[in-house]
Order: sequence, then structure tokens, then C-alpha cells
Amino acid sequence: MVVVERRKPIKVKEAIERVMNFAINGGKDFISIEQANGHFLGEDLVADHDVPLFNRSPYDGFTFKSTDTENVSSENPVLLQVIGEIGAGSVFTETVKNCQAVRIMTGAQIPAGCDAVVMLERTQEINQDGKTFIQLKQSFKSGDNISYKGEDTKKGTVLAEKGTFITPGVIALLATFGYKQVPVSKKPKVGVIATGSELLQIDEPLQPGKIRNSNAYMICAQIERAGGLPIYLGQFNDNLETCFTQVQEALDKVDFLITTGGVSVGDYDYLPAIYEKLKADVLFNKVGMRPGSVTTIAEKDGKLMFGLSGNPSACYVGFELFTRPVIRTFLHCKQPFLKSETALLGVDFPKPNPFDRFVRGHLTFKDGKLLATPVGLDKSSSVSSLAMTNVLIVLPAGSRGYEEGMEVKAILLEDQYGTSYQSFLSKDNSKPGRKEHHHEQ
Amino acid sequence: MVVVERRKPIKVKEAIERVMNFAINGGKDFISIEQANGHFLGEDLVADHDVPLFNRSPYDGFTFKSTDTENVSSENPVLLQVIGEIGAGSVFTETVKNCQAVRIMTGAQIPAGCDAVVMLERTQEINQDGKTFIQLKQSFKSGDNISYKGEDTKKGTVLAEKGTFITPGVIALLATFGYKQVPVSKKPKVGVIATGSELLQIDEPLQPGKIRNSNAYMICAQIERAGGLPIYLGQFNDNLETCFTQVQEALDKVDFLITTGGVSVGDYDYLPAIYEKLKADVLFNKVGMRPGSVTTIAEKDGKLMFGLSGNPSACYVGFELFTRPVIRTFLHCKQPFLKSETALLGVDFPKPNPFDRFVRGHLTFKDGKLLATPVGLDKSSSVSSLAMTNVLIVLPAGSRGYEEGMEVKAILLEDQYGTSYQSFLSKDNSKPGRKEHHHEQ
Repeated sequence: MVVVERRKPIKVKEAIERVMNFAINGGKDFISIEQANGHFLGEDLVADHDVPLFNRSPYDGFTFKSTDTENVSSENPVLLQVIGEIGAGSVFTETVKNCQAVRIMTGAQIPAGCDAVVMLERTQEINQDGKTFIQLKQSFKSGDNISYKGEDTKKGTVLAEKGTFITPGVIALLATFGYKQVPVSKKPKVGVIATGSELLQIDEPLQPGKIRNSNAYMICAQIERAGGLPIYLGQFNDNLETCFTQVQEALDKVDFLITTGGVSVGDYDYLPAIYEKLKADVLFNKVGMRPGSVTTIAEKDGKLMFGLSGNPSACYVGFELFTRPVIRTFLHCKQPFLKSETALLGVDFPKPNPFDRFVRGHLTFKDGKLLATPVGLDKSSSVSSLAMTNVLIVLPAGSRGYEEGMEVKAILLEDQYGTSYQSFLSKDNSKPGRKEHHHEQ
Repeated sequence: MVVVERRKPIKVKEAIERVMNFAINGGKDFISIEQANGHFLGEDLVADHDVPLFNRSPYDGFTFKSTDTENVSSENPVLLQVIGEIGAGSVFTETVKNCQAVRIMTGAQIPAGCDAVVMLERTQEINQDGKTFIQLKQSFKSGDNISYKGEDTKKGTVLAEKGTFITPGVIALLATFGYKQVPVSKKPKVGVIATGSELLQIDEPLQPGKIRNSNAYMICAQIERAGGLPIYLGQFNDNLETCFTQVQEALDKVDFLITTGGVSVGDYDYLPAIYEKLKADVLFNKVGMRPGSVTTIAEKDGKLMFGLSGNPSACYVGFELFTRPVIRTFLHCKQPFLKSETALLGVDFPKPNPFDRFVRGHLTFKDGKLLATPVGLDKSSSVSSLAMTNVLIVLPAGSRGYEEGMEVKAILLEDQYGTSYQSFLSKDNSKPGRKEHHHEQ
């Protein structure tokens, strides 16, 4: 009788909870603002001054007292004497008096005494007795065409929270507040070890029975996209003792360790033995999901070891569900999970499944709605579908298939804003999708 | 009389067309696969072999001839003699005969003579007379549990086109096809010069009347996001002759040149004079849009100079509308424009405008629909709104404002798939949005 270990699958939701119990926050680094795009804020970004810092002119024009323009119209124009000019960045030190005006450039500070600006195009310049005047033909209220101190941002406002993904817009704010060095979340070092005696190195010629190692490179790119620092530690050799030493040494160098392959119940699947020998705590070794049911996650002294499947699609999905939120938590993201949004299923998906299915799909938009369409071959071993994948379509376990146009959840893989665990796999994922114009088959 | 140059605004669509006339494709580089994530494919990625390369087993189990299981059931089981085993990566050289089976690991090649696989869990091992047998209690059809040669991808398939953004999924394919070195599109060198006598260096303390230079850092990050290589060339000084020399020297070093500020009609706006002195061809110097109407784009011997506004929001918008598609074209992207999708407006926007408005907004999803909501202060000088900006909400020129719930176009700033020019600002952008439950005010 073949002795096969019977593993009891747990629900995806519970698996994620078990992993997140060991998710920790990492530290903080400082890097130059030129390098900061794409990192994560290591501190809240707080406005340390008002923006604008002073009342300023949004236009090239003239500034003056609005009271000088009471009852002014094209029939009843007023002349104001031009007593100077203010370039952007300079300050006018005199106080402007009644019936005076000052030429002012875009962005320049409004001088004392003035409370309105007229655009250059709306004025006429008149020279009389060696003096320069402007003629105004309309009346102005106090504050007209003035950008007020603090109207954009008040001092003390939290403009972006710790853990925010740094975009060009965030960079603009960092520069505004003088961050030549930017506090960023330290990226976790994530080790990657590939297993499988069938794996060829990327530059080896093909051989019968073998395939090139694609998982390691894919996972390294997924780690990068998630915000981590991938450290590829190479391939396992075929000896259990050597593998054990490799894992033990790797654990000392990294914040988390990912292995690809070797978690199944086959004779060459060393990971279960290694976890045992390490006295690691196996959080689970079977999840009620397709692909990736063999995903095994263990922890040793609080350090997580992600035993992902050796099948490319299963490996990919396992990473996004279990490893990504741990990386984002390390980076202090308040919403470490990927957004999962309601979308219409783009095609029929007739295959029913006893396990929740995470189908590689491509998200598009149609008439303002999200449309998620499976791509390529839906097998855990498939790789070509991954090129176009930007969502995982969640098809909950059930006895029936799904029809085109049904509402499903789509996990957005390229999203940077994230969501909390509560909304990631919210209850409505477990009920079958509702079709907009439903007909029984 | 003040002499103010009267500029004639052109439509955004026409401005984009004039710029795109000078957009060119760049060259190709080779980089290691470890560095390739986030680059753009420099060649079509074509499958140079079938995937799988051979018929293989998707499970750990046994392989045999399906004809041996005809009429087999739990009442009528069959015994097959186990004559060997195939680890992943090894090849079984004998031909399997009737009533024989071979132990096979996940991913291993199906040996000659076999055409079905049974999962390990579904078998019983029986030892008799020193020989090992498995007992099967069900019948199999030819092909059961076999992953066939080429079922994932056929040799010759174009898996990703030249110009595709390289994601982790694309990396998996590059590794599968042995790309240790990856052909990537050469990134354009985009020079950035900041102008404005009001600008402080990022690490200078604040001074009355001055602001820190935030545009240069923001634009460098936008260049990175678009796929270009930013080269920050510093700030202009106040002397026209020196500025002219700076621009002339910069042009020799870069593929495109961006300046921020200095394109308005003010006394300190040097760019128009520099374009004239360079004998550059000014494509336009006024666009019917808010913010960024002063955006000026010129070309000298086919090299584009983007004169963006000095106002942060205007600068940001000008880049995304005009510079990004030029960068993406250089990278060989077939769809160099950002996706612009129908979304529901998240709040009322009562301000009517004679110019098309590109409002900084944040995109969320609600019940499977796109929802675009303006963020922060809607002024061209505002900077705080940029932190949360991930869409530009297009509000076409017109005499009335917009209401919450109306359909608008939203340009997705973090999109990597893009669109063609035809669909970027398609005709329906120029008609006012339709509200789902409309009521006249």
C-alpha cells in the first residue's frame, strides 16, 4: 500500500489569517529624493508650513487696493500710478498707498497694502508727466485674483501616511517640504530558492524531460513589484542534508524565504522534511484553492517561509495571496492587500470546482464598468497566460460553473493603493456571482 | 500701452497631433533578466519551442496504457506491474508494455507506450512474489491526466509584442525561452531644466517670496514612470545669454528636453526668446486647456523641447498629455497614450470653463463601476492635490458645470497598457457627460 500523507485543506481566508499573524513592520531608511519614486514613505508626510507660504499672485499683472476700484466701470475708469515691480521671488518692501499699483509676476508675494490683482491683459498703461499709470475699467473685490496663504495646504496637515507608495505627485510634495533625503520604509530582503531536479539554468539548452527555471525569475519580479528586495539564492541540489543547510543559512540572511517547488507529497519533495528538521511550525500545507493547493507556509522563530508550488501559475498566485501582504506590512502599508473589486466575467467559465479558483485574467473597462476575462490555459502548470495577467478572477468553490456577464471579484495585481484584509476577501466572495440578465440553463 | 503678446489657443487634440508628428522610435539594449522587470520589450517575444516541450504528467502518480483499463471498475479492478520510476527531469528509456505502469513525478515526461496518468492518491500498491503492482478501480481514456506538448503555447506564437511593459508574468516567459539577456527598448534621455528666480534649492531654508523647486523632482519621477531616463540639468540663471547656451548644450546630450516655467508672457519668461534665437520651430504656445494653457512645444532639427508651465499642476498635466506619449513611442509601445475610460464623476463640479479642463482626481471603484473624484484645490498652482492623483478627469469646455454622477472621461495615470491616439481623446470627450438619473436644475 502506497503511503500517501492525507492533507486537510483549509480555507484561503483562514490561511491568510494564519500567515498575517506573523507579518511584521520593518525599519526605515533615508534615500535621496532622486531615488525615492516607487519606494514607500517611512514616515507620515506632514506639511511643516502653509502652502502657499504667503499671499501671492496667480497671474502676471498689477496689484493694488480694491477700494480704489469702487464704482469703476468702462464709463468710469480709474488711473493707478505704477510705483514699482515685483519679480517672482523678490519682495516689495514699501507699503502700497491709495491709487498706487505695483507690477507683479506670477507667484510673487502680494505687498503690504494690496488686496487684489488684475491680469496684465486687462490693463492699459498710460504715461503722463514722466509717470506711469494703469487704467482699470472694472471694479475689484478684496481678494480677487489672490492665492491666499495656506489655501492649498495648512501647516500640520498629513499629506500622505507612512507606508504610502511614492508617486510623482508625492515627490512634488516631498520637494515642496524640503526633503532632500526621504525617509522610506526599509525593503524586506526576500530570499528565493528554486527546487526541482527537472530545472535547467536559464542559459542551458533544452534537454528531454527538463524545463528551464522560470519561477525564480518570475518570483523575483513579483517581489520587486510588491516592494521587496529579491535575493536569488540559486537552486537546491538533490541531497536532503545539503538542502537543509541551504535553508538554514538562507534564513539568517533574509527577512522572509520563498522556495518554489518541493512542497507536494512526492518522493523528491524535500520541504516537509526540512521544515520538520528545522523544528519550524507549519502553518498549513494544503489550501482549498486552485491553483496552488499545495502551498505550504511555515514559520521558524517568527520568520516566515513560503513554500510555493513549482507550477508557474500556482507559484504566481500563491505569492500574490500570501507573500505580498506580508511584504506590504513590512513596508508599513496600512492597506497591505491588493484591491479586490467587482467585475463582470468576460466569458463563460463552465468548469465547477470544489476549491476556490483564482483564474489569471486581464482587466479591461467597458462603458465605465470593469470587465475581467480569463487569459490562456487555466492549468496550474501554464505559463503563457501570465504575460497578459493583471487580475486574478476569484471564482468561489461550488457545484456549477460561471457565465459571461456574472459579477465576480477581481484582484487587481498592479494596484498600488491596496485594501485592508476586511475588504480583500469580503463575505460576498463566497456567494455565487449574480448575472445582470440571468436566465436558467 | 502695455504690449502683451496675444496668443491664439489651439485644441488639445491638435496640439497632441503636432507633437506626435515628431515622435520617433528609439533603439534597443540588452540587459540581464534580473534587471528587466519594468522595462519595455525591445523585440517581439516569440515562443521558439512548444510549451510543454513534451507530453508530461501534471501529477505525482503512475502512467500506463489506457487500454489496460477498459471495463475496469471497483468491482472489476486491474493490476498493473510497476516496472520503474521517473523523477522530474529524468527520462524513461524503455517502452512500457501492456499491464505495466511506471511511477511518475509531477512534470516528468510520459514514456513511450503510455497515454494516461492516475494520481498517487487513487492507487493501491500491492506486493506479490517480489514484484510491485498497483491496483486501479476505474477506467481511463487515452489522454487522461496528460499535459500535451504545445497545449500551453505553440512554437512560433508571439507571446508579447515589442514595446510591451515587462511584468513578472512576462519575465516568466522570458525565462522559459532562455532569455538570460533581454532585448529592451532603449530608454530616452530626457533632460530637465527648471526656471524661475523664485525657486529655492530643495535643501535651502524658506525665504519670503520664494518657494522650493518641486517641479524638477516631480517631472523626473514622471519621466521614470513613463519609462524614460530623467537627467536633471539644474536651474536656469537669470541671464538670457547664459540660458540660451544652457539649452543649446543640453540639446546635444538628450533625446528630449523639458523646461519648467518661463513660457508665459511675463518679463522674465525667457523660453520664447530662446526658441527664437535657436531658430526652433514653435509648434504651439497656447493650448485650450486648464491647467497648462501656456504649454509651449518647439522642435529643433526634429528634437522636441517641452516648455511646461511653472505651476505644479499645470506642469504635471502638460507632461502626461504631451511628453508621455513621445516617451512611450520612443520605447516602441504600440499604444503610447494613457487609457482614457468612462467614469462617473464623484462630486459636483460647478465651475464652467471656456477651455477643456483636466482635473486632478482619484479613481476608485464602486459596484463594478469606475468613480473619478477630484482631489484638493483645483488651481494650476496647487501641489497638495497631486499626492492622491491617479487620474485626470476630462471636463470638456462648455458653458455649464458638471454634476455628481455624470459620465466623464478619466485618463488613468498609472496604466501600463495604454491606448492608441484614436481612442485616447475620442470624439465623445467633447460632448457633455450624460448623467444616469438626470434632473434639470
